[in-house]
Amino acid sequence: MAVSAQDVMALRERTGAGMMECKKALTETGGDPERAISYLREKGLAKAAGKAGRAAKEGLIYTYIHPGDKLGVMVEINCETDFVARTDEFRQLAKDVAMQVAASNPTAVRREELDPALIESERQIYRTQVINEGKPEKIIDKIVDGKLEKFFAEACLMEQAFVKQPESTVGGIVQQMISRLGENIIVKRFVRFRLGES
Amino acid sequence: MAVSAQDVMALRERTGAGMMECKKALTETGGDPERAISYLREKGLAKAAGKAGRAAKEGLIYTYIHPGDKLGVMVEINCETDFVARTDEFRQLAKDVAMQVAASNPTAVRREELDPALIESERQIYRTQVINEGKPEKIIDKIVDGKLEKFFAEACLMEQAFVKQPESTVGGIVQQMISRLGENIIVKRFVRFRLGES
Repeated sequence: MAVSAQDVMALRERTGAGMMECKKALTETGGDPERAISYLREKGLAKAAGKAGRAAKEGLIYTYIHPGDKLGVMVEINCETDFVARTDEFRQLAKDVAMQVAASNPTAVRREELDPALIESERQIYRTQVINEGKPEKIIDKIVDGKLEKFFAEACLMEQAFVKQPESTVGGIVQQMISRLGENIIVKRFVRFRLGES
Repeated sequence: MAVSAQDVMALRERTGAGMMECKKALTETGGDPERAISYLREKGLAKAAGKAGRAAKEGLIYTYIHPGDKLGVMVEINCETDFVARTDEFRQLAKDVAMQVAASNPTAVRREELDPALIESERQIYRTQVINEGKPEKIIDKIVDGKLEKFFAEACLMEQAFVKQPESTVGGIVQQMISRLGENIIVKRFVRFRLGES
């Protein structure tokens, strides 16, 4: 069945699961959001903890301009209440995420938001590399998958090593903040302008 | 002939003409940038004055966050030298443009950057409206064109009435600043985040 973008977005907000996962869940469950949540939980894709299942519609827009004014980042970070959005800790998280984007130039927030054509093209490149290296056929897929995981860890904001504390990922830092502030928190989107780039 | 996006962008920077116009100019002139400039000048599409023909690769990234942190705008504005980019007047222009985007929510910088499908869909809507109003066949195109012009004046940042001084367009304000600062100035791009919008 056809699933509307609004339903997918609403399910994402309630579960924190990826766009493609939510779309699949709705498709499989005839568009029933409650059954879709159960489906995602069964698959382990909805963050089972109550907090991560709650709607995050508040938050803030935060910008970071690198000294010199040649590089700027804008992020939207959501939480559940305006009260939390106004805390120093939430604001600090927004600043950290914006500076992370400035420093590490991710392609997307989550791997589900990467262009599937880009992923396929990376996969092909890795496959060709591995074949050219003369690796045995039976381990090629495994090596390619490993290289793709490394690519995701660089391209996806939530999987990047957090610049201020590289033993955690950005997603891990967000999880910590969810525990500390007691609300679901979602890094919704970012944009990065460098002077002269299109 | 096929024209590369880089060539189109380079020609835009040299002429200030629109993307589609530059593409057409390069196609018509076999990709020769000098002949393409002449072509655009002949059509009156390149700003004939020397200043507007010069490359604008400097400038700044500027952000505006509306009080409350629920609405943010980021803009890139180009000029020719870092010296001008650092002037208070240029910075004020960047701020004015960012606040304009916050207030007036344009769809694109210039009409050439609007999605052609959107323009066609607007045209169809206006045509249907005008036919339903029972207007005579021979004036329908003229009325539709008039409605489209009004649409462009709302959707395109450069054609919008400047909020701080509504008797001028934003494009007119940029032209005034080109005269005052003696350098070509181009509003290159903008992005606008409102909390909870996708």
